[in-house]
Amino acid sequence: MKVLLVYAHPEPKSLNGSLKNFTIQHLQNAGHEVQVSDLYAMNWKAALDANDSKSRLDKTYFDASLDSQHAFKNGLQSDDIALEQSKLLWADTVIFQFPLWWFSMPAIMKGWVERVYAYGFAYGVGEHNDSHWGDRYGEGTLAGKRAMLMVTAGGWQPHYSARGINGPIDDILFPIHHGILHYPGFDVLPPFVIYHTSKVNPDSYATICEKLGQRLDTLWSTTPIAFRQQNGGDYTIPDLTLKPDIAPELTGFAAHIK
Amino acid sequence: MKVLLVYAHPEPKSLNGSLKNFTIQHLQNAGHEVQVSDLYAMNWKAALDANDSKSRLDKTYFDASLDSQHAFKNGLQSDDIALEQSKLLWADTVIFQFPLWWFSMPAIMKGWVERVYAYGFAYGVGEHNDSHWGDRYGEGTLAGKRAMLMVTAGGWQPHYSARGINGPIDDILFPIHHGILHYPGFDVLPPFVIYHTSKVNPDSYATICEKLGQRLDTLWSTTPIAFRQQNGGDYTIPDLTLKPDIAPELTGFAAHIK
Repeated sequence: MKVLLVYAHPEPKSLNGSLKNFTIQHLQNAGHEVQVSDLYAMNWKAALDANDSKSRLDKTYFDASLDSQHAFKNGLQSDDIALEQSKLLWADTVIFQFPLWWFSMPAIMKGWVERVYAYGFAYGVGEHNDSHWGDRYGEGTLAGKRAMLMVTAGGWQPHYSARGINGPIDDILFPIHHGILHYPGFDVLPPFVIYHTSKVNPDSYATICEKLGQRLDTLWSTTPIAFRQQNGGDYTIPDLTLKPDIAPELTGFAAHIK
Repeated sequence: MKVLLVYAHPEPKSLNGSLKNFTIQHLQNAGHEVQVSDLYAMNWKAALDANDSKSRLDKTYFDASLDSQHAFKNGLQSDDIALEQSKLLWADTVIFQFPLWWFSMPAIMKGWVERVYAYGFAYGVGEHNDSHWGDRYGEGTLAGKRAMLMVTAGGWQPHYSARGINGPIDDILFPIHHGILHYPGFDVLPPFVIYHTSKVNPDSYATICEKLGQRLDTLWSTTPIAFRQQNGGDYTIPDLTLKPDIAPELTGFAAHIK
């Protein structure tokens, strides 16, 4: 299988750097092909702006969506953006590895999403009518591919528990899982999360690698998070709210998981 | 009063650009002092890295936290970082204005948080003991100041409702409200959110400005979101989970609001 690792950490000798190397080696040893987008090493341009297109639609006004659509449709995107899109199309599974900084992905990776997720590629795909509101949330360009987050957190596991002060890790990651990965079609696997990173020692590192290896060995068989499909009948259109008979007792993020 | 507007949008003639100008004018007309950090105009460096310090602790290994602490303590931070910290200390209220891109702030603003929120400034502040786990979540360097998000979203309001497909807007913004603003001490005001931005016309723009003006006029009297204080007795230490008798029926983000 083909795996793309999108990786963001500024220090190659860090825990994240070691786990990146372990992941590549482990997958290659099992016979898989691996490509790595090491965003810091690539000096990835984080800020989406008018320079992301080689020839703009309207040089007097930058519209992030329309300029992205124009550039994507006409082969006018920056080369770095087009290359990352081709890696996404190549991959069967994409792993996003990053340290949790201020309860989300590092800015450099957020900027990868903003720039690579072009209009016509990751959003603005498919028809809009009374029964189908675009190819998104379970459909889209990346449908049939799998994605998994691999996240390190300085905080302790109980701080991220159901009643922990940071909020539950599944809720903190929901905007990424659902809004960034499920949106353009990925099947989203449960995340691999490492807590309390300052206390990792050789013993616990070995345990982490063993568990990570198991997750990598089962990337293709692990059951994805059961996010509802937007156009599968559970939502009204165009209000895109859950129909009254669907999980009537639930509100919030949890209602969008079967 | 003194207001800092941290603003991220790549197009000055956009809806966001107009609302930024309206905000500055409205506040100045009312006699307030305003500073603006226009991140795109400043060409703000988004990616946190080893260059954020003028002289590193250990040139062979970059530790994001320890290098930040060393640079902050010894006056070795990049000038751009120190300048933004001085603006935060100057302000009574900080408004963060941005378009919601992929369910969070733009990368360039996330990078502002990561770089300006130094160890010793926004985290790693205060003592850790049996009854006090650092000055955070309601205490800290920015305690006594107010913060408000001003957010534009392309999606429709029902898509962000309690059972809307994107998830409730309050939950989507929780990692920012609680994890980025309440954490270093801000009192966090309810957000000002504009939905369905592609349909804004002169009439609805006038209505938006009227409502925004009301929010700006009441920045100092609006009741903040009632986030619990970490060290106020509601949480166990060091597990930082809610005590069994505190909102026993609740889990998730909502449990952290009184």
